[in-house]
Amino acid sequence: MSNSKIRHALDITREADFAGWYQAVVAQADMAEESGVRGCMVIKPWGYGIWERIQRVLDDAIKATGHQNCYFPLFIPLSYFAKEAEHVEGFAKEMAVVTHHRLKAEDGGLVVDPDAKLEEPLVVRPTSETVIGQAMSRWIQSWRDLPLLTNQWANVVRWEMRTRMFLRTSEFLWQEGHTAHATREEAMEHTLQSLEIYRSFAEDVMAMPVIAGEKPENERFPGAVSTFSIEAMMQDGKALQAGTSHYLGTGFAKAANIQYQDKEGQQTLCHTTSFGMSTRMIGGMIMTHGDDDGLRVPPRLAPHQIVILPMLREKEGDAEVLAYCEHVRMALAEQDAFREPVRVLLDSRPGKAAQKRWDWVRKGAPIIVEVGPRDMENSKLAVLRRDRLWREDGKPDFDFVDRDDFIFGAASMLESIQSSLYEEARKRRDENIRHDIETFEALAEHFSETAKKPGWVKIAWSRPSGDALEAVVEKLKSLKLTIRNTPMDEDKPEKPCFFTGEDAVETIYVGRSY
Amino acid sequence: MSNSKIRHALDITREADFAGWYQAVVAQADMAEESGVRGCMVIKPWGYGIWERIQRVLDDAIKATGHQNCYFPLFIPLSYFAKEAEHVEGFAKEMAVVTHHRLKAEDGGLVVDPDAKLEEPLVVRPTSETVIGQAMSRWIQSWRDLPLLTNQWANVVRWEMRTRMFLRTSEFLWQEGHTAHATREEAMEHTLQSLEIYRSFAEDVMAMPVIAGEKPENERFPGAVSTFSIEAMMQDGKALQAGTSHYLGTGFAKAANIQYQDKEGQQTLCHTTSFGMSTRMIGGMIMTHGDDDGLRVPPRLAPHQIVILPMLREKEGDAEVLAYCEHVRMALAEQDAFREPVRVLLDSRPGKAAQKRWDWVRKGAPIIVEVGPRDMENSKLAVLRRDRLWREDGKPDFDFVDRDDFIFGAASMLESIQSSLYEEARKRRDENIRHDIETFEALAEHFSETAKKPGWVKIAWSRPSGDALEAVVEKLKSLKLTIRNTPMDEDKPEKPCFFTGEDAVETIYVGRSY
Repeated sequence: MSNSKIRHALDITREADFAGWYQAVVAQADMAEESGVRGCMVIKPWGYGIWERIQRVLDDAIKATGHQNCYFPLFIPLSYFAKEAEHVEGFAKEMAVVTHHRLKAEDGGLVVDPDAKLEEPLVVRPTSETVIGQAMSRWIQSWRDLPLLTNQWANVVRWEMRTRMFLRTSEFLWQEGHTAHATREEAMEHTLQSLEIYRSFAEDVMAMPVIAGEKPENERFPGAVSTFSIEAMMQDGKALQAGTSHYLGTGFAKAANIQYQDKEGQQTLCHTTSFGMSTRMIGGMIMTHGDDDGLRVPPRLAPHQIVILPMLREKEGDAEVLAYCEHVRMALAEQDAFREPVRVLLDSRPGKAAQKRWDWVRKGAPIIVEVGPRDMENSKLAVLRRDRLWREDGKPDFDFVDRDDFIFGAASMLESIQSSLYEEARKRRDENIRHDIETFEALAEHFSETAKKPGWVKIAWSRPSGDALEAVVEKLKSLKLTIRNTPMDEDKPEKPCFFTGEDAVETIYVGRSY
Repeated sequence: MSNSKIRHALDITREADFAGWYQAVVAQADMAEESGVRGCMVIKPWGYGIWERIQRVLDDAIKATGHQNCYFPLFIPLSYFAKEAEHVEGFAKEMAVVTHHRLKAEDGGLVVDPDAKLEEPLVVRPTSETVIGQAMSRWIQSWRDLPLLTNQWANVVRWEMRTRMFLRTSEFLWQEGHTAHATREEAMEHTLQSLEIYRSFAEDVMAMPVIAGEKPENERFPGAVSTFSIEAMMQDGKALQAGTSHYLGTGFAKAANIQYQDKEGQQTLCHTTSFGMSTRMIGGMIMTHGDDDGLRVPPRLAPHQIVILPMLREKEGDAEVLAYCEHVRMALAEQDAFREPVRVLLDSRPGKAAQKRWDWVRKGAPIIVEVGPRDMENSKLAVLRRDRLWREDGKPDFDFVDRDDFIFGAASMLESIQSSLYEEARKRRDENIRHDIETFEALAEHFSETAKKPGWVKIAWSRPSGDALEAVVEKLKSLKLTIRNTPMDEDKPEKPCFFTGEDAVETIYVGRSY
């Protein structure tokens, strides 16, 4: 697809330096920046606008399954954490701890006031199972109170030494759903329903093909009985875990005393679940849809789906061009795409149209429309689709179309962009999955130092546990590989286990990951 | 208005114990509860649903004035805080400080790992001027970048010793707008525009009459040049500061180096502003509209504006009643009120209709509709308006109306409830403001120990400053009074100053406050 006639909008290509390209997209699409505060980013309007879209659509989907939003405290007393032993083990190494509640002036500066030490340190929530568990134990009395389906949108903190914007930051934003059920079956059913919400959101809204499946034992959420994930393949072939759903069994319920009186009058422990999706998804969107000209935002997520750029010359005719553009804007805003009004921006800031065009290309607005005096006279518009940016001759592929044809066809053009982004990503993903690697030597060769974008390998295994699994994990680790997940609803493979030669019981995806 | 025939839904009346009544409403309307974490509350679905409505409507209004949402870090390095001296002075005593980033296991428990001490302590944001100022200094180069209009929705922490749900909690949720401008005039104009957004939101959406005005010098936000507020009168006559807008001058710009190159090429300091409204508004709503039967939510804020309660008997006919209710629900959901679809809930949970009715009365749903088999047969509905709950004879004032009349009249009924709540609050507020108190002795008598609901007093003053103001503030403090604000756009009073006898320059409201 490379064409030497094209002068791309970014200086760095994905091919040359994928990590550098990622940072360039974040910066040049004006999505986020370093804050000066270790591990924390500033999310700028275009990045936050995409997050607001994620929130709106995902929130509707979560509410549609009966969840109600709540808000729980930012701080969790240390003692709450100590209750669920496995959970603590998994998180203990990376939490921000509040120890004091006052500063004081000293020597012209400010210091922590040693007299204001807290009796009990407070942990800044890395996730809220423990504190929500305490609430559930108050709220649930009898089987009539079940299922209890809550959700919260919040910031959480997991101390990170090496950070990367959106993908791994000490503070991040997310949604965390928490539920309690009467039985294992109902809890597991809900766990899988949440996983399906994520799969559908990733594929249908973010245009990001994913594998929904169960994580192996060693990759479970601390304290969980089963962890499920959706896994997306980035353009460098690495996996991104893009959302997780956990069946927590009765362990958290026991720790927090979440019991209900069943229909026979018995006190019984609840089965709980949790599931979360975060600002990390924005990193996944960049690495799924970005190209050498910047970001490409799927229409269903774009804060502005169509950007209209008037060609202003700081001359008399400008007012007419602006009025014509405003007319087009209003007509577009009356159209519906994806069962919502079309989101259209008339960018009438001063500045050259060409420069503004490339700004919006880098930001990834799905459709850019340019309007000059001549277009106005002819009732035409110059339309550029972000998913089909270039002509063969290296020029931007503008289509000059009749105004009304564009207006009334805008919704279907947006739908076409949405599906073309999905199809492009799905095709690439499928092309980068190998099904035919049968030995560890072949695997090592496939993932050798010189291999470019080796993608994932799908293998059959016997689902070892405990020490046997640990041995497999260590062996894969020598190739920097991890087990991603076991895809849902697949037949038992008719192959021996890749590792042990025993009968395989299921398939797993193996790859490098973020 | 008291009627001995009525058996109210709460045990505590406003008259008997206003503070106890407030807590009873919060608990019995199921809005929030203590979390077990010092100073932090759990906001439950009905309380959070109201907050989501506040967010949605206020966010639209803020965006309509050109603001874009961003997200800034939760943690602010101590050194950022030390830069703006007055600002620090105002906040230094009440901040949560993160000093460590790891826990470790010890003696079977968890402790803060002393090896993981941060080089520089991090303050959990009490407000974000300092960290946003740093970002503005990066983002602003020239006059073309101005005005810069940002906003963020976030949690903030101000350590509090005595807390009260929604009104004063260590952690609370809010919106904070931050702007930078080229000139004092533009910054001040924006400060007043933000104040007007709050006034309009309070009065038109929350049905809460307010006085918009300027705070006296001693009540300014730390570091601000001018602080404006909206002040609402609660049913006990006390004032609640319900939203503030600050003109910050160039002090924060100087501390964070927010400069722009003006049209002549000169480097010039920006003038900055900030404004915030928080979950405290929910406390204000309770104390403005609540009554002895619980909360009354203004229709524009109600998560459910109409709740339909089927009278189920666990008999055969139930399915028909439910189907009829669902038909009514769908027809109502197709109506628009306040230019949005009507929000209607069919509460089909098991349980007695009467008990569910009183749950929704306590929660303050604006309209409750009950439907039994006979109503269904006659195409009737039993309709209860929350703002006109009781008949003279002490029975709930149900109106039996034709189904279609109700459906097509629902929007105007909701509008009528919205304005009746506003009018009731405005009338009470106006009746509790005295304009005729001219001496400190009369003021002391009006606010004597035995005075019941003394409300506010409006007086003229000469706007003393510095020590002279301090003397006035101390004098008022002896009566537990504070100056609320100077109302906007009033003529200079033709009276002497209440305190000094000099010529007055403006009026002020004086009262007790939350």
